[in-house]
Amino acid sequence: MNLEAISIVLVSTTHSGNIGAVARAMANMGLSRLALVTPRASIDEEARARASGADHVLDGATVHASLADAVADAVFVVGTSARQRMSRWREFDPPQAADAIAGATMPGHSAAVVFGRESSGLSNAELDRCDALVSIPVDPAFPSLNLAAAVTVLGYELRKRHLVDAPAPTDAHEDHARPATAAERERFFEHLVEVLGDAGFLRDHGQEKLMRKIRYLYTRAEPDSEEVAILRGILTMVQRKIRK
Amino acid sequence: MNLEAISIVLVSTTHSGNIGAVARAMANMGLSRLALVTPRASIDEEARARASGADHVLDGATVHASLADAVADAVFVVGTSARQRMSRWREFDPPQAADAIAGATMPGHSAAVVFGRESSGLSNAELDRCDALVSIPVDPAFPSLNLAAAVTVLGYELRKRHLVDAPAPTDAHEDHARPATAAERERFFEHLVEVLGDAGFLRDHGQEKLMRKIRYLYTRAEPDSEEVAILRGILTMVQRKIRK
Repeated sequence: MNLEAISIVLVSTTHSGNIGAVARAMANMGLSRLALVTPRASIDEEARARASGADHVLDGATVHASLADAVADAVFVVGTSARQRMSRWREFDPPQAADAIAGATMPGHSAAVVFGRESSGLSNAELDRCDALVSIPVDPAFPSLNLAAAVTVLGYELRKRHLVDAPAPTDAHEDHARPATAAERERFFEHLVEVLGDAGFLRDHGQEKLMRKIRYLYTRAEPDSEEVAILRGILTMVQRKIRK
Repeated sequence: MNLEAISIVLVSTTHSGNIGAVARAMANMGLSRLALVTPRASIDEEARARASGADHVLDGATVHASLADAVADAVFVVGTSARQRMSRWREFDPPQAADAIAGATMPGHSAAVVFGRESSGLSNAELDRCDALVSIPVDPAFPSLNLAAAVTVLGYELRKRHLVDAPAPTDAHEDHARPATAAERERFFEHLVEVLGDAGFLRDHGQEKLMRKIRYLYTRAEPDSEEVAILRGILTMVQRKIRK
């Protein structure tokens, strides 16, 4: 597994010290791609101090206006969630997440691990952008992990997986199309919402719930780019027929 | 494995913030026994702030004049060491250390994991007090781990080992509907072929190939009965709209 193909994405981080501590934890584990989504703190002296020499990670950090933008080129996106939810997402423990990421990061493909706000984690809308969730098995009596501690655990599992250096698992897709990117999948979901609207579905809370279920279904299937193109082709023909 | 039988021992810690951050990491992982050997910092406001509510760990901390005193009742002592040494000690990676500790902490027996100074780790005399060493597999290019990060990784491996012995966690997917039957899936595929026809797709060899790809995609997702019902509901609405 190529650790350089993995982005650590921090959403709306409030404390600059945490950004620095994350950079240090990343460097310890051999990770270097840091993406900041709408950060509420800057890379200041406190961040530099806590980075403790991991300036190359801070200097290379990219800033994004949205999570969608930050993960656009990732074929596999894992969101971290401290909570046990009755969820429709695939839920991994950290070793499983590392295995899944190793499977996704074939040459030329990148993956992302997304960490939420210090106070409230990731919103449901943000989790919808993720292909799977990973939970660190903390003590339920004291579950609040420091941001850098969460990055340390995930980074540690990714590094362990990297050091195993096993050959990548064989691809189940026999014709070896490349996995669809997050942006391609997003455009499909948006297109589907459009067609649902054309077909008379109301854009309400019920539709949101429906879309979450549909997202979960398609995400589980891990569609490749050709399959997403097929689905969008069908939507286009149906849409023309309805609109004409 | 009983996590309460494991002491986290910090030798000559210099920064009170680190003591607090260690307390938080311990509480996250269900550890509570903290022992401070000749600390160079006190449990002050900074420590409390970084402990982020893990006051029970700080309040229960014991202070010792020597490492020998701190580990006196432990049947198994593991020293952490960032360095690869040509050593006479048994050297473990973190999962091996957790296994060894689990083996040692039979009822009535305790174990200790010892962490050295922020600047220079443990001395050889201190390592002599240990039964084995554990190294975290950091990137050799950036090996300097924050004290709390080291405790986080070891605590995480101990907790994973602890959870193996504990009852299995509840299934995250327990709200899942039953898997769709073959007949339900078949009716969906037939329905989709109908809608494709309504939308103007020709019933030819190309459509057969397309349907084979689509079947493969949906089969891989292993849809449950509710999901198939949702997909068929969408087809029904689209079909009505096209036909009217």
